[in-house]
Amino acid sequence: MNLLQFRSLAEKIFADIRELTFDGVGVTRESFGKGESAAGDYLRDLALSEGLEVEADRAANLVFRRPGTKAASAVAWVGSHIDSVPQGGNYDGLAGVVAGLLCLIARQREGRSDPLPLETVAFRGEESAWFGKAYMGSSALLGKLSEADLALTQRATGATLAEYMEKAGADVAAVRAGEVLFDTARVKAYLEVHIEQGPVMVARELPLAVVSGIRGNIRHNHVVCLGDAQHSGVVPRWLRHDAMFAVADLIMRLDEHWRVLLERGTDLVVTAGVVNTDPAEHSISRIPGRVNFSIEARSKSTDTLEAFYQLMRAECTAISRERGVRFEFDRRLLSEPATMDDGICKVLSNACSQENIPFEVIPSGAGHDASLFANAGIPSGMLFVRNQNGSHNPQEAMEIDDFMLGVQVLSDALDELPQAKAVASSSAKDG
Amino acid sequence: MNLLQFRSLAEKIFADIRELTFDGVGVTRESFGKGESAAGDYLRDLALSEGLEVEADRAANLVFRRPGTKAASAVAWVGSHIDSVPQGGNYDGLAGVVAGLLCLIARQREGRSDPLPLETVAFRGEESAWFGKAYMGSSALLGKLSEADLALTQRATGATLAEYMEKAGADVAAVRAGEVLFDTARVKAYLEVHIEQGPVMVARELPLAVVSGIRGNIRHNHVVCLGDAQHSGVVPRWLRHDAMFAVADLIMRLDEHWRVLLERGTDLVVTAGVVNTDPAEHSISRIPGRVNFSIEARSKSTDTLEAFYQLMRAECTAISRERGVRFEFDRRLLSEPATMDDGICKVLSNACSQENIPFEVIPSGAGHDASLFANAGIPSGMLFVRNQNGSHNPQEAMEIDDFMLGVQVLSDALDELPQAKAVASSSAKDG
Repeated sequence: MNLLQFRSLAEKIFADIRELTFDGVGVTRESFGKGESAAGDYLRDLALSEGLEVEADRAANLVFRRPGTKAASAVAWVGSHIDSVPQGGNYDGLAGVVAGLLCLIARQREGRSDPLPLETVAFRGEESAWFGKAYMGSSALLGKLSEADLALTQRATGATLAEYMEKAGADVAAVRAGEVLFDTARVKAYLEVHIEQGPVMVARELPLAVVSGIRGNIRHNHVVCLGDAQHSGVVPRWLRHDAMFAVADLIMRLDEHWRVLLERGTDLVVTAGVVNTDPAEHSISRIPGRVNFSIEARSKSTDTLEAFYQLMRAECTAISRERGVRFEFDRRLLSEPATMDDGICKVLSNACSQENIPFEVIPSGAGHDASLFANAGIPSGMLFVRNQNGSHNPQEAMEIDDFMLGVQVLSDALDELPQAKAVASSSAKDG
Repeated sequence: MNLLQFRSLAEKIFADIRELTFDGVGVTRESFGKGESAAGDYLRDLALSEGLEVEADRAANLVFRRPGTKAASAVAWVGSHIDSVPQGGNYDGLAGVVAGLLCLIARQREGRSDPLPLETVAFRGEESAWFGKAYMGSSALLGKLSEADLALTQRATGATLAEYMEKAGADVAAVRAGEVLFDTARVKAYLEVHIEQGPVMVARELPLAVVSGIRGNIRHNHVVCLGDAQHSGVVPRWLRHDAMFAVADLIMRLDEHWRVLLERGTDLVVTAGVVNTDPAEHSISRIPGRVNFSIEARSKSTDTLEAFYQLMRAECTAISRERGVRFEFDRRLLSEPATMDDGICKVLSNACSQENIPFEVIPSGAGHDASLFANAGIPSGMLFVRNQNGSHNPQEAMEIDDFMLGVQVLSDALDELPQAKAVASSSAKDG
């Protein structure tokens, strides 16, 4: 099945959705909000015009399928997300949904029947930028959104996740009850195409990569360092309780631990993405009495995450003592690392080889909806598409030729999927 | 002359003005803005009801005097400011204006004639919190506001200092032309009462202190550190250009230099009062690509300020190279240190001694309008009143008994001022 014929359709979809959600700098598709819904509405109209069925699931994600597939007792899912960070790039998430949709359109136009029919899922709320939590749409589907998650508030409006989900049409009562909102036994495999968000594939000149596993992360969205706000000119160094110097001290101590851990071969990245002196009281001539910040560590190893976290807390205790400040932590959030299914990795690797596409098997530094399905026991696999300038920024620049290679490999892999060990055995048990 | 009789009037003035400008947390009296004007209007009404004259000078500061004083060829000024930082305390600035006003009220009620009549000046715009520049009202009066100063914008509204001054009634054309807006030869001395803004007097149990000199400062209100905004999970440490780690690195290097300089006996304090990752693009899962911050050093020595500044710029260059970031600086602002007049210090010290008030001669860590008059060649002196919990915060807590001692000493000193060496010689030259 030749998917490369859909190159201009793919270009048109990306251009149209970019225009719909352009914010003057990049694209802004708020989780369960305006830009995300605009992208979803566009894809729904396109799918309907191709004769596909579109349905919102109970978590308000969009499911695309060919007529008749709904009754199938075994399906493969291709999913990714349609939200973006503020001023983000056009391809992070959207590329994977478009890839799945093109596979459906190709099959529908050809009219052939598939042994393992395909459903493409456009998840809402994957980006943590809006509510401080990632994978909200897929978590809701898997019954994994807690009461505390639903009470998280949107960064700009202050409305809760529950309110946003309700408005988007989700069954919030069922989400709150922790119900699994789909038939997990029916989904034999989960595949996701995503742009690479790091610099590895560009550096190694690889248009595609097969993902071996996904880094987990541990974070606090909101830590407060409390010192003593005083006139900047009059308090000598030894009497200061400067919250900003304390946070700078913490960041530099973590930087040093990080450096040492890397030398021992540990997989780790550390980020303080949001750091602010308190706008209600800060001024150029005042010692900061309050600094708000986020802190995040990512690793392929749960043990590393836990060890680094304890190190961070120990440094906060030491700094509190040395600088006379206090740290207050909100809820600790943990996303477990995930391993992709070996059999599906092989199917994806074979598909690359047969198309003569250079590829490597690499880990994913960023989290993806795929990690939730993998950790829920659904055999999962991911394909990375090369992408210039990283993601979560407007300069993100996947080349359409690379993307089409990804769509072709995805389509080839879907055809081979029934032969993958995990899928075959699961289907056999099933029926 | 007994000034202690005005204790309840002083309490009433402080309570009324606090209520007028309370913001729910502290007091907010915006430079050339609403809260500042409310305080000025209250004081004007009070002064008029006591039979005093009130006039706005050409920089929109308020001048209070007894009828007939305007024609005097030699006067003493008592001044301080009526603005505050956001969520500030009630006494920083206001206490000095009230002290001067009580001296005028006492003299007016008694009806006696003074050899060196008094004018009390309520300056506007002393706090740098609003426009990033301090002493705006007194600078304007001395012809020292530049075109660039007038173009500074208010932190909340974005309107320029020129627009604010115009609205408050200042002669902005004359300010812009750098005219000196008062007869400097007529002002034989400048006195200022101010709460201490540091912890020294509380620690040493001193209700009053005579100020020997005022720390200057060097600062940038707005430095930008530019790195590379990327997804937090995917860029390894050695490929990162993290603007927040770079700024934390800078702060810790300056902290270390500061520590070493103090060990050598250098007078220095260092503050980064405002530090922010860019709210338009930051997120928990993004490496900060842009951090905005302010940086300030204060010292009694101009040489120390200059040396520390060069050290700071050198560290920025080193960090830029090591971390692949860039620093962009706005205009460098320098407030020169100032020395108080020896003769006036002696008059103030004698007045304390004769009232049997324990006091010491100490330097001022914070800047004051007095430094401008001292550096303009007008013999100047300052008296500090003990104050709990520092200033520039709502917990600031001068005791009214300490304040009344300050008012008494100020009044006594005003009576002795014609005997001070600098004042006597200046008046003699004057003829």
